[in-house]
Amino acid sequence: MVLAYIEALKNHNDRSMELTPSSIVLAAKNRQIQQLRHLATRVELVGAIGQLVHALQSERGASSLYVASGGSRFESQRTQLAADSSTVEQHLRERFRTQLDEPGFGNASLFSLIAWVVLGLDTLPALRQRIADCKIKADEVVIAYSRLIAGLLSVVFDVADSTVDPGISRRLVALFNLIQGKELAGQERAVGSALLASGTLAVRHQQRILHLIETQERNIQIFSEFSGRPLVDDWEQMQVAPYMVQIERLRRVLCSAAPNASLDANLSDTWFACCSERIDGMWRLQETLLADVRAECARLVEAAEQDLADAEGLLEVVATHPPESARLVERFLGPELALDGNLGTLPGHGGESENSLLQVLQEQKARLAAMEAERDAARRALNERKVIERAKGVLMARFSMPEDEAYRTLRKTSMEQNRRLVDVAEATLAVLASIDPQKA
Amino acid sequence: MVLAYIEALKNHNDRSMELTPSSIVLAAKNRQIQQLRHLATRVELVGAIGQLVHALQSERGASSLYVASGGSRFESQRTQLAADSSTVEQHLRERFRTQLDEPGFGNASLFSLIAWVVLGLDTLPALRQRIADCKIKADEVVIAYSRLIAGLLSVVFDVADSTVDPGISRRLVALFNLIQGKELAGQERAVGSALLASGTLAVRHQQRILHLIETQERNIQIFSEFSGRPLVDDWEQMQVAPYMVQIERLRRVLCSAAPNASLDANLSDTWFACCSERIDGMWRLQETLLADVRAECARLVEAAEQDLADAEGLLEVVATHPPESARLVERFLGPELALDGNLGTLPGHGGESENSLLQVLQEQKARLAAMEAERDAARRALNERKVIERAKGVLMARFSMPEDEAYRTLRKTSMEQNRRLVDVAEATLAVLASIDPQKA
Repeated sequence: MVLAYIEALKNHNDRSMELTPSSIVLAAKNRQIQQLRHLATRVELVGAIGQLVHALQSERGASSLYVASGGSRFESQRTQLAADSSTVEQHLRERFRTQLDEPGFGNASLFSLIAWVVLGLDTLPALRQRIADCKIKADEVVIAYSRLIAGLLSVVFDVADSTVDPGISRRLVALFNLIQGKELAGQERAVGSALLASGTLAVRHQQRILHLIETQERNIQIFSEFSGRPLVDDWEQMQVAPYMVQIERLRRVLCSAAPNASLDANLSDTWFACCSERIDGMWRLQETLLADVRAECARLVEAAEQDLADAEGLLEVVATHPPESARLVERFLGPELALDGNLGTLPGHGGESENSLLQVLQEQKARLAAMEAERDAARRALNERKVIERAKGVLMARFSMPEDEAYRTLRKTSMEQNRRLVDVAEATLAVLASIDPQKA
Repeated sequence: MVLAYIEALKNHNDRSMELTPSSIVLAAKNRQIQQLRHLATRVELVGAIGQLVHALQSERGASSLYVASGGSRFESQRTQLAADSSTVEQHLRERFRTQLDEPGFGNASLFSLIAWVVLGLDTLPALRQRIADCKIKADEVVIAYSRLIAGLLSVVFDVADSTVDPGISRRLVALFNLIQGKELAGQERAVGSALLASGTLAVRHQQRILHLIETQERNIQIFSEFSGRPLVDDWEQMQVAPYMVQIERLRRVLCSAAPNASLDANLSDTWFACCSERIDGMWRLQETLLADVRAECARLVEAAEQDLADAEGLLEVVATHPPESARLVERFLGPELALDGNLGTLPGHGGESENSLLQVLQEQKARLAAMEAERDAARRALNERKVIERAKGVLMARFSMPEDEAYRTLRKTSMEQNRRLVDVAEATLAVLASIDPQKA
């Protein structure tokens, strides 16, 4: 059976690829270039998604103000911003259409997330019609756009999560957190201006604002950790901009007002304007970071191509003078794995061929190992988010609590027990799973 | 620029894939089937590697005994076992040759590991020649084969590590640990019989034996955790087999003998025989587990194909009666993400089309989320091993200590501080990295 299979293989497929260490290591390098190219197209996708998120955020702001004003204000802005969103949306759809066909573009989970996003995009015309007719409430508008944006963000997360290269992975983690921080800032703008415009405030509104401020800060913290120095400097400069003084003052008004206090409705426009300045600043930061990711991708592809060329050069000597395998025994089976350390150092220098081959292989091995170790930091940040989100989801489902309450519950336990949030989230998942394995 | 690009795309590639949620979700399911098929071929590769490891272990045993006897014993066994290994090796090489060409077979790191393995296999003829001529010491024989086997094991590890399906991932983690445990049992057999045959024993030999016993137990513990009930039962039955009594008795002799004590050289054959019985038992377990992985792969492919067929059926109604997007707005933007919980429940039932579409999407989403959560347990076990191996490697390089001493150092700290081994390993890496970032 096996022999027949091997015979069949021999007749069919013989020498389709020469099986030598040199040929395999060159194939590995080619595969790496391919992987980097796929990564570059996914980064472009992330860029297009970032643009649509930005456009939808603006449209959300104008639409909710339009609805809140009973259709009396912001009509032309809303119409213009909706048209802008549609243009960016078409661009993204074209990208989906072409990229989904490419082999190696992404895995089933990315496809599945994109299906959700397209489903959401398909609902946009009906949503806009309801807004135009004022047949929807302002906070429902915010919910509808926010959910669509959350779907788009989950695609960015998935791309960051599936990236193997540590440099790109770090930057994508920073980018995801910046985009999400900006989205929370956008929600803060929307919720705050709706509250100020309505003129009253309840405790749950205050909690919502506090939650949005706190989670933004978590995103920005991770962004700062994973993006480079110049971007963090830019961010810190934004923190001392004049509009931040206004924002902090109005945040204080929103957060410290007594329950059911009445608010100065005129502050709504001021709030909206300075929040928008801040969000525009974040958008510029996002564009800078995206340009940096693109440049890094291009640099990596170039480096990988150079590396392939170098390896081909080095291995040419191997092809013409195959190394003598007796000497390779010494070199390949170096001393460091000696079972009890008494093997000593083996004869040091082989011929040029085995030196070249071992050099290429060892460099490749060292590079992959270094990449993996470096990648772990970025992966940890992503995993922590996943665990926290999962614990939040379980709490929400199990105890029918809203999202911010679930988060506060975890946060409170974390502070009381002086344990990291992710550890509390893990413990929560474990405990709930052990109580009822069906539902956790 | 962008517009020209989009135009070009339109002319070139239009409707290559219809961009609807239904078409994307079907593409996702097709991609999943593809991924599972690739996984099945990698599982076959793991099977072929397991066979070669087994063959090389037997060849290593006979070869080291042959060399230790100065060529007077085990000649025919050694020659036969070497011929057996070569047959299995050819089978594996054919597999490499055909699989490396397949797109989606594996990433650059798998290729790189395979290049190392092939380099090692290329050295086998020269190694065998030296053994035949007795121009190598018995412990060098053990080192040479062990390193080749370690390379083969690293391929198995990489396959387990890159597996997304949690059921397969768990089984591959179990399989990797069983194969590695068996390999350590093989090394224990080789070291023990060499020591008994030589008639003397030093402290470092005892430590080596203790180290091999302890690390085997760690492998078996993980194997038990990740393999199913019947296999663990089989394992426990092996623990009460008559040969285990002999092994434990001789382990005691080896581990408790006074330094430089002389040993009864006649015990060497008994030791070899009962260790071999144990290893054969592990080999049968490995074959059972591999058959189980294969069956699970086949089951998953079948289930994925059925799932695709079901989804196609469900989505047919969507294709003929596209859902009305106004109703999809309600359904897609369900209540659970309400910003402050007061949105209430949205009108419950849409038409058949949106129900089908949402059902397929929601099932897919839930399945992927469950897979990811389940997968984490297996991934954690693999990550722990990586971190521990990395910390061991850094200790070995930094303080020029042999492997078992590095492991003992970590283990001792773990017990003294009552912290998990992996936490100690992480702390070690962090501390050494902060002392000299160049070298850690």
